[in-house]
Amino acid sequence: MKKEIAKIKTLFEALPYIQKFSNKTVVIKYGGNAMVEENLKKSFARDVVLMKSVGLNPVVVHGGGPQIGAMLDKIGKKSEFVDGIRVTDDETMDVVEMVLVGRVNKEIVGLINHYGGNAVGLGGKDGGLVKAKPMKIRGKKMGCAGTVESIDPSVINLLDSSDFIPVIAPVGAGEGGASFNINADTVAGRVAAALNAEKLILLTDVEGVLDKKKKLLSTLTLAQAKKLITTKVAKGGMIPKLKCCIETIKGGVGAAHIIDGRVEHAVLLEIFTDKGIGTAIGLK
Amino acid sequence: MKKEIAKIKTLFEALPYIQKFSNKTVVIKYGGNAMVEENLKKSFARDVVLMKSVGLNPVVVHGGGPQIGAMLDKIGKKSEFVDGIRVTDDETMDVVEMVLVGRVNKEIVGLINHYGGNAVGLGGKDGGLVKAKPMKIRGKKMGCAGTVESIDPSVINLLDSSDFIPVIAPVGAGEGGASFNINADTVAGRVAAALNAEKLILLTDVEGVLDKKKKLLSTLTLAQAKKLITTKVAKGGMIPKLKCCIETIKGGVGAAHIIDGRVEHAVLLEIFTDKGIGTAIGLK
Amino acid sequence: MKKEIAKIKTLFEALPYIQKFSNKTVVIKYGGNAMVEENLKKSFARDVVLMKSVGLNPVVVHGGGPQIGAMLDKIGKKSEFVDGIRVTDDETMDVVEMVLVGRVNKEIVGLINHYGGNAVGLGGKDGGLVKAKPMKIRGKKMGCAGTVESIDPSVINLLDSSDFIPVIAPVGAGEGGASFNINADTVAGRVAAALNAEKLILLTDVEGVLDKKKKLLSTLTLAQAKKLITTKVAKGGMIPKLKCCIETIKGGVGAAHIIDGRVEHAVLLEIFTDKGIGTAIGLK
Amino acid sequence: MKKEIAKIKTLFEALPYIQKFSNKTVVIKYGGNAMVEENLKKSFARDVVLMKSVGLNPVVVHGGGPQIGAMLDKIGKKSEFVDGIRVTDDETMDVVEMVLVGRVNKEIVGLINHYGGNAVGLGGKDGGLVKAKPMKIRGKKMGCAGTVESIDPSVINLLDSSDFIPVIAPVGAGEGGASFNINADTVAGRVAAALNAEKLILLTDVEGVLDKKKKLLSTLTLAQAKKLITTKVAKGGMIPKLKCCIETIKGGVGAAHIIDGRVEHAVLLEIFTDKGIGTAIGLK
Amino acid sequence: MKKEIAKIKTLFEALPYIQKFSNKTVVIKYGGNAMVEENLKKSFARDVVLMKSVGLNPVVVHGGGPQIGAMLDKIGKKSEFVDGIRVTDDETMDVVEMVLVGRVNKEIVGLINHYGGNAVGLGGKDGGLVKAKPMKIRGKKMGCAGTVESIDPSVINLLDSSDFIPVIAPVGAGEGGASFNINADTVAGRVAAALNAEKLILLTDVEGVLDKKKKLLSTLTLAQAKKLITTKVAKGGMIPKLKCCIETIKGGVGAAHIIDGRVEHAVLLEIFTDKGIGTAIGLK
Amino acid sequence: MKKEIAKIKTLFEALPYIQKFSNKTVVIKYGGNAMVEENLKKSFARDVVLMKSVGLNPVVVHGGGPQIGAMLDKIGKKSEFVDGIRVTDDETMDVVEMVLVGRVNKEIVGLINHYGGNAVGLGGKDGGLVKAKPMKIRGKKMGCAGTVESIDPSVINLLDSSDFIPVIAPVGAGEGGASFNINADTVAGRVAAALNAEKLILLTDVEGVLDKKKKLLSTLTLAQAKKLITTKVAKGGMIPKLKCCIETIKGGVGAAHIIDGRVEHAVLLEIFTDKGIGTAIGLK
Repeated sequence: MKKEIAKIKTLFEALPYIQKFSNKTVVIKYGGNAMVEENLKKSFARDVVLMKSVGLNPVVVHGGGPQIGAMLDKIGKKSEFVDGIRVTDDETMDVVEMVLVGRVNKEIVGLINHYGGNAVGLGGKDGGLVKAKPMKIRGKKMGCAGTVESIDPSVINLLDSSDFIPVIAPVGAGEGGASFNINADTVAGRVAAALNAEKLILLTDVEGVLDKKKKLLSTLTLAQAKKLITTKVAKGGMIPKLKCCIETIKGGVGAAHIIDGRVEHAVLLEIFTDKGIGTAIGLK
Repeated sequence: MKKEIAKIKTLFEALPYIQKFSNKTVVIKYGGNAMVEENLKKSFARDVVLMKSVGLNPVVVHGGGPQIGAMLDKIGKKSEFVDGIRVTDDETMDVVEMVLVGRVNKEIVGLINHYGGNAVGLGGKDGGLVKAKPMKIRGKKMGCAGTVESIDPSVINLLDSSDFIPVIAPVGAGEGGASFNINADTVAGRVAAALNAEKLILLTDVEGVLDKKKKLLSTLTLAQAKKLITTKVAKGGMIPKLKCCIETIKGGVGAAHIIDGRVEHAVLLEIFTDKGIGTAIGLK
Repeated sequence: MKKEIAKIKTLFEALPYIQKFSNKTVVIKYGGNAMVEENLKKSFARDVVLMKSVGLNPVVVHGGGPQIGAMLDKIGKKSEFVDGIRVTDDETMDVVEMVLVGRVNKEIVGLINHYGGNAVGLGGKDGGLVKAKPMKIRGKKMGCAGTVESIDPSVINLLDSSDFIPVIAPVGAGEGGASFNINADTVAGRVAAALNAEKLILLTDVEGVLDKKKKLLSTLTLAQAKKLITTKVAKGGMIPKLKCCIETIKGGVGAAHIIDGRVEHAVLLEIFTDKGIGTAIGLK
Repeated sequence: MKKEIAKIKTLFEALPYIQKFSNKTVVIKYGGNAMVEENLKKSFARDVVLMKSVGLNPVVVHGGGPQIGAMLDKIGKKSEFVDGIRVTDDETMDVVEMVLVGRVNKEIVGLINHYGGNAVGLGGKDGGLVKAKPMKIRGKKMGCAGTVESIDPSVINLLDSSDFIPVIAPVGAGEGGASFNINADTVAGRVAAALNAEKLILLTDVEGVLDKKKKLLSTLTLAQAKKLITTKVAKGGMIPKLKCCIETIKGGVGAAHIIDGRVEHAVLLEIFTDKGIGTAIGLK
Repeated sequence: MKKEIAKIKTLFEALPYIQKFSNKTVVIKYGGNAMVEENLKKSFARDVVLMKSVGLNPVVVHGGGPQIGAMLDKIGKKSEFVDGIRVTDDETMDVVEMVLVGRVNKEIVGLINHYGGNAVGLGGKDGGLVKAKPMKIRGKKMGCAGTVESIDPSVINLLDSSDFIPVIAPVGAGEGGASFNINADTVAGRVAAALNAEKLILLTDVEGVLDKKKKLLSTLTLAQAKKLITTKVAKGGMIPKLKCCIETIKGGVGAAHIIDGRVEHAVLLEIFTDKGIGTAIGLK
Repeated sequence: MKKEIAKIKTLFEALPYIQKFSNKTVVIKYGGNAMVEENLKKSFARDVVLMKSVGLNPVVVHGGGPQIGAMLDKIGKKSEFVDGIRVTDDETMDVVEMVLVGRVNKEIVGLINHYGGNAVGLGGKDGGLVKAKPMKIRGKKMGCAGTVESIDPSVINLLDSSDFIPVIAPVGAGEGGASFNINADTVAGRVAAALNAEKLILLTDVEGVLDKKKKLLSTLTLAQAKKLITTKVAKGGMIPKLKCCIETIKGGVGAAHIIDGRVEHAVLLEIFTDKGIGTAIGLK
């Protein structure tokens, strides 16, 4: 019996957070290892279901680079990359959309529903959710690699008003029905801003934001986050993630979190415990 | 970090129950030790708050015999008892109502609010909630000791539709504005039936319903519960409690639980764990 | 038949007032003789019921000094007074809350319901209605005699949206679940301001506000009301009542009325006849 | 002051009736002297406004025989009558519709609005309210004298859901846009049935239904009403009125009243006093 | 089959207009030949029904000068005119109201309903829609010829929220229940402003607004419209129509159209084709 | 101008159908040539947009056999067929889901949005829309070729309550997150039944149902439809289509239409003209 009581007590640790976030929206960028390892996939799906059950509105935006690569390999299609972004010709874009919207998205939807949730998958065309435009890098046309022009959050708001959980693939709709491949962090940030979300959470494969001595920084003000970029303490892939967080907070979102997706229940640990597990930026 | 993860995992044990009981009403008769010991009082208040936070509608009905006795002693008023029920003259009834509605009820309201809930205390007169009539025992008039004539659940439904938690003192309104002292188990049962509640939970100072060998019976069908009375296995105060549960289930309530209020978080343990801690009657 | 017609015609006198106040809130401080004499009690209860029936939202705040005194006498407890305010120790506060919330409040609820209304009694803890803080008078701690820190009118608004009539006892909730005894005029004024009420009506045991020659002043501007205090025409208990009215009007309430509770149907006469019976302050 | 109090007390006589009829619909056939004498017109308009103010939904159906006759005289048009019903040729029907819908109806609307109501006039064509068909009397075609085929109460229900008072002229819409002149009692009865009204009230120029000795019958069961016709105690114009009441009650309306429109405030006296002033049929 | 396909394609020409005007209000002044010739009457009624069916809210305001003249002739009543406006004595006003509200209005209502619409006719008294005041021309009193004092659009909004089509006769309510005859263009313009309509459409018996060379001007800016008046290019009856349009646009209406009511389906052609058929003023 | 008028008149041909189907649901199985030829694709998208604009709720269910075949060819994967149904192994199912949900579905969504609609694509997993189970043919396991177990139309109803147009890919969710490939006609029929749709429309590459002499049958009763199967007049692919229509009508749908998708605007021609272009079954 004591064991049971001990368990019940744990419920109470989450209570202030449940009350604090009741009916608030949290946008989660889901990607990396958390999308690959079976345990992490399950733990993520269950986290999302639990969040909805206790009154939050989770919105998932996912990536899918490795799955796209595997499919392109299968059909013998090669890609050029510029600054880590895939130059996306029309044939490649067909594969990107099929894999992201038709496979990865539906796998996540199926997983969430398996654990008792009620997910609905969306691409950027659905309900006019993500309008996109082509991007260039140093003058070079990137084909169907694009960026966000605008977000129309109507369909997400409709789903959130009921018990559905939106799961979004980072594909945008361009002029004349064209599709664009967009960075998932960017889509997540822009969706969070359009929804006036309480939080943006970026799941990564690192511990969080580190200082010079490679020690985890648990919280950052907006100013500190900017300084990490200008002082070049932040390096590589962390730079665009920090920029995305900074833009999102400027867009009206309460806080942005960069957390370690390799930890089971990373999302819940970040939201429902005092300490959190990654780096929280702009927290008030 | 492992400790944190372990805690989060506990949240998931409750999830199926949260989903199962979402937006369901649970009426809890609160009394005995759980109303006296500081730890138990706090654990009860927090249980109720957590229930509301995860989507249930808890409705509390409380007793208050010891507090009434103490006050009557203080003013030097003596009472006669018949079959354990206080013969209640008008002066005594004044004290009963003051103590139950003015002190015990408000203490519970205050406690629940202290832990983040939003309780509203009600006597049977409020919103015409409990209509009462006088009772007789073997022909003997019991004064203002009464029983339930009818329940008008409108005010509870109104409070439940918002984020308030109703806390009910077992005082009924008779003809011409008279007050009646009613057994709290009875009020809880009748309120549960009027609300089409999912569960009635009676907090007691025993482990639950016991068999001949004094072993706890975890579940009972309605037929088994009746048989415990006819075969006189059930004794003393357990008999009216069993009868109350049987009547309540007949009135349309899903199940009735007799549980041990001396255990911390007894209510949550009964609702949110598989095994429960007391006796569940009529569970499907 | 002529008598019947004469009666019907009276209905029309009230019509413009019914139309004028339709769906408006009127907060009434109920106390003094009107709470003691049988005829006045009944007439008050019926006034409140009629107000609700024709579309107003009456909210009752009551006092209870004499009933508290009688109970304290009964248990042999003495009180010290500073400037007419009871120094309230913990034991006294227990009695105050029991008497106000458990007896006086429920008697008023019962009376209103007896005449066809649907009253719900509330203490300051219910729904977090009245947050209180301790008061000092010239540096002297007054124990549990407190004053209003803030009002959360949610539960009243919920009840008003349905056909319930809120009846409020002037007990506030302090830090940590403590109770405070608050002046009922103050509570009524602050509740009226929080509700953006159309009117605050203070029932007293005098005719209204009098001028130097002891003649009733039927109407006062806010400036005139202030001047009565500074010129010391207003004396004794009338000074805090005038101050309360002035504060309430500043808080956004349309007008405040000080009327003679010793007159049967005083409230209706003030609201539903041109002349009124007491002093109207700040009327536009 | 005593006079004022006496007046207020009259309000309370109406209270049980206000509560009883709250949100109920009462259809009133308005005609005869009550539509001609200035005092009676005003008293009627004010009665209707007061009914709406205290929560009833009055619906007025009016006649207009004398005003039609006057207009026909003015343009030198003569009419034949069969059993008191005007044989209505097309030119006559034009005048009937103009007078009823364009003059009489709007005068009533204007009068009600003058006393603070918010009336909206309707002919049978408006919102498809009254579908009509031609009538024959003993084989004789009556031209545009018609009877009710069906009622579509949608527009009345819409107006009643807001604070509007519908005022209906007894003109029906036939096939192909033709207009028909219909007996106003019949329209009132059918509208009452379509609305599931609480009461139908027919204003007449007699005291009510009389027995053999010319004494007023205050109440009649449905059976008694029928017997008055079969035993020929009811004579002349009272026969169709009784038949209309009987049909209306059979159609689901709570009760039908035949009252004396020559009495000021006849409608209110019938509804808001115990005794009433005319004959109530089918009252439970 | 090709013919059928050709027809279907026509539907698509209207689609952008349907989408553009979805749930927008269009006020149409209906008068002149369009109210006299059978074909035009039918085409107008059907246009209005189709507009409502595809999601617009048409509101019709009609005139009736010729019908009033005919009736006055019939009863041998002569009228004086000042600047084309009838000096309206009380007897004449009775005829005006009867003819406009009782005949013309109901004929339009009947026609719209015949084609599947659900029209409700309104005079200015209904629901307090049009408050009027007397007008003078160069100091001369015009009797019951009046102008608009204010519009209360509540009853129109209520009807528009359901599937009803309001049809308004240009009669206003003055002080004390008096009626006033008001220019229908003026009523249409003021109603359009009160409803924040998308468009005001004036049906006339000319092609539209013409330039010096009698050529139709398809579009006019507000400035151009004013200049046509100051430069005296606009003449006669076109001047008040232009002024009405200018005032209406200043009152917040999107655009005003002066179109040729002698063309079948004039209203639909103006709204649902690119070119339109008359003069559009203030179009953005 | 005459040409314009002629066009407007065409609008009126559609009016009775617009009124008849206002707010009704029509489920359209979209496939075959209509999904391949550019003109037909555009005409279909525009038909759906127009339907939504005039008040219907179109729901699209699409197939995608050829696109699946092309993709399988590309990756060099061969399929076995039994009775025309693809034996679908897991690798094949991955391709099926990607192509149907990720490419075909999104292309249709993009096309509808391009013409002004607001489509949202759904697979059977989204919102738990289509629960599927494996099928066997003559004992042979068909892998992931499945059939419908149940439909949960909540997400469609939510989208229909707003201005979204659901577009459904025929992929169902099995136990444990597995995907199943289901015949699109079957999904369309079951979805129509679950929505209590007014109509099911199957777009085919033939004229409709033909009689023995290869002449088009414009209408069929349910009995006639069954007889065509039992008498073997219906042959090949028409047999399952007829069976699907019969089952759907039994499931409560008003009528089922088998029409020629090779005709431009086939859907509108069937719904909005008297004659229609294919075979209507079960029409009342």
